[in-house]
Amino acid sequence: MNLVQYQQAIKNRVDSNLTQQINSLPDHAESLKQAMLYALLIGGKRMRPFLVYAAGEMLGVSAEDLNGPAMAIEAIHAYSLIHDDLPAMDDDELRRGHPTCHIKFDEATAILAGDALQTLAFEILCDYSMSQENKRIELVKILSKASGFHGMCGGQAMDLAATDKQISQQQLESLHSKKTGALLIACVEMAIALAADISEQNKQYLLKFAQTIGLAFQVQDDILDVTSDSKTLGKPQGSDQEQNKSTYPAMLGLAEAQTYLEELHQQALQALRALPYNTQILQSFTDFVIHRTY
Amino acid sequence: MNLVQYQQAIKNRVDSNLTQQINSLPDHAESLKQAMLYALLIGGKRMRPFLVYAAGEMLGVSAEDLNGPAMAIEAIHAYSLIHDDLPAMDDDELRRGHPTCHIKFDEATAILAGDALQTLAFEILCDYSMSQENKRIELVKILSKASGFHGMCGGQAMDLAATDKQISQQQLESLHSKKTGALLIACVEMAIALAADISEQNKQYLLKFAQTIGLAFQVQDDILDVTSDSKTLGKPQGSDQEQNKSTYPAMLGLAEAQTYLEELHQQALQALRALPYNTQILQSFTDFVIHRTY
Repeated sequence: MNLVQYQQAIKNRVDSNLTQQINSLPDHAESLKQAMLYALLIGGKRMRPFLVYAAGEMLGVSAEDLNGPAMAIEAIHAYSLIHDDLPAMDDDELRRGHPTCHIKFDEATAILAGDALQTLAFEILCDYSMSQENKRIELVKILSKASGFHGMCGGQAMDLAATDKQISQQQLESLHSKKTGALLIACVEMAIALAADISEQNKQYLLKFAQTIGLAFQVQDDILDVTSDSKTLGKPQGSDQEQNKSTYPAMLGLAEAQTYLEELHQQALQALRALPYNTQILQSFTDFVIHRTY
Repeated sequence: MNLVQYQQAIKNRVDSNLTQQINSLPDHAESLKQAMLYALLIGGKRMRPFLVYAAGEMLGVSAEDLNGPAMAIEAIHAYSLIHDDLPAMDDDELRRGHPTCHIKFDEATAILAGDALQTLAFEILCDYSMSQENKRIELVKILSKASGFHGMCGGQAMDLAATDKQISQQQLESLHSKKTGALLIACVEMAIALAADISEQNKQYLLKFAQTIGLAFQVQDDILDVTSDSKTLGKPQGSDQEQNKSTYPAMLGLAEAQTYLEELHQQALQALRALPYNTQILQSFTDFVIHRTY
């Protein structure tokens, strides 16, 4: 299976599982339910579920055991996008070419949908069918650490604080390692937690890969905001600059940012090459992240 | 120890534990940290931690094992208050006599503080010192079920949908059983989960008690909104009516609502009397909930 087929298969699987999960909820709060489903299915590359499945299957974990973690991490991601898009935050009306949740529904429903999706992530880790019952609490631990103050929420707060300010490259990297990096690393950590046997050294290589790909993703995101167009991006091009956000092109210049991206590309591949597994799909994924146009 | 002393001891314990928990967070997002602490300590009766400790100690659970659940449930409660107070939701500027979180800080920080407090609750259940490691996942399960779509979030969505509408007493009860009842029941469920041994029948009595006290709390809340004053309440008196919310006094009339409250009072005491434990502190607590003036 090549990358595109594998990505499509994962997108189908996770979309179908999430749809089923939401549709199985009772009917007492219909618009909340619809807003949760809308935010989950609004599009997206399913990069996090991809990492969960690709790393997990590489380590010999069954796809069945990876379903819950993949859904949970996507629910956390979707909740964070809903709240990031709110008027009091980034005030975005368009996400992946579609109206954002608070535009499609209303602000109150969007806030609640984000809240309920965060909770749903933990419910799924407790409940969703899985053969390794004894691993559930470790999965909750990984996901909560990555999404709370120590990770994603803390990073978003740093991002808000950094707007309209000059920050150093080190601060920018610390911000991104929390805002987006922590969740990407959690994908791999959850796969590792479910693996029967992995050496400490291989664990470190895999985490290094996740960390590097997370940073590369962000650098490319910043570059695309300058070089792409709104239609391809599915959101307004130039919005970082308009919101006066610190970005790699703004900090390093465009050419230097592109050089940096290529360095990260090589570092990620190097970490993969050090692993004694079939890393082909993760290699293709790395190339995809670096060369993607949206 | 009488009720007032026990309540004060629990308030001191939970406030100190929560303060320590927040102060131990790293420094990368200072205003988020301060907003989380502010929202946790803004006052309040610590009714949920009280129920966790009182029910748990009655069942022979050590106070040490109850610390984590008590903090976690208070973190969930605090997050829900922050988000409920937001301009897009109830738009409240005063909570327990203090500026609400988005007034004291700003809206973006308040949204994030709520988000991060929700995550913190699950982190605490994973991490906080506890002798019964094998019970952690059950605690996460109880808390996530009670706070998400099936419980608190779903109830808040029903509340928003019911504003400016005529609903039946049954619908109002269903709304409250989710919005506030689910979390109060979860306090007792967590205590039960940690108890070494409790019969199915006694479990049912205790849950019936929690359910009844949750409903009684809400009925008294609605009554106080009519009969009390803003200074005593720490929030604007008459705000339910102003926001055109469905309440028991509006639905049944004030006298009938008071009669109903007394019925619930007796039902809660009856459930306690059926239990073969020393229920004295829970009895006093029941009287307190029914007769409280704030």
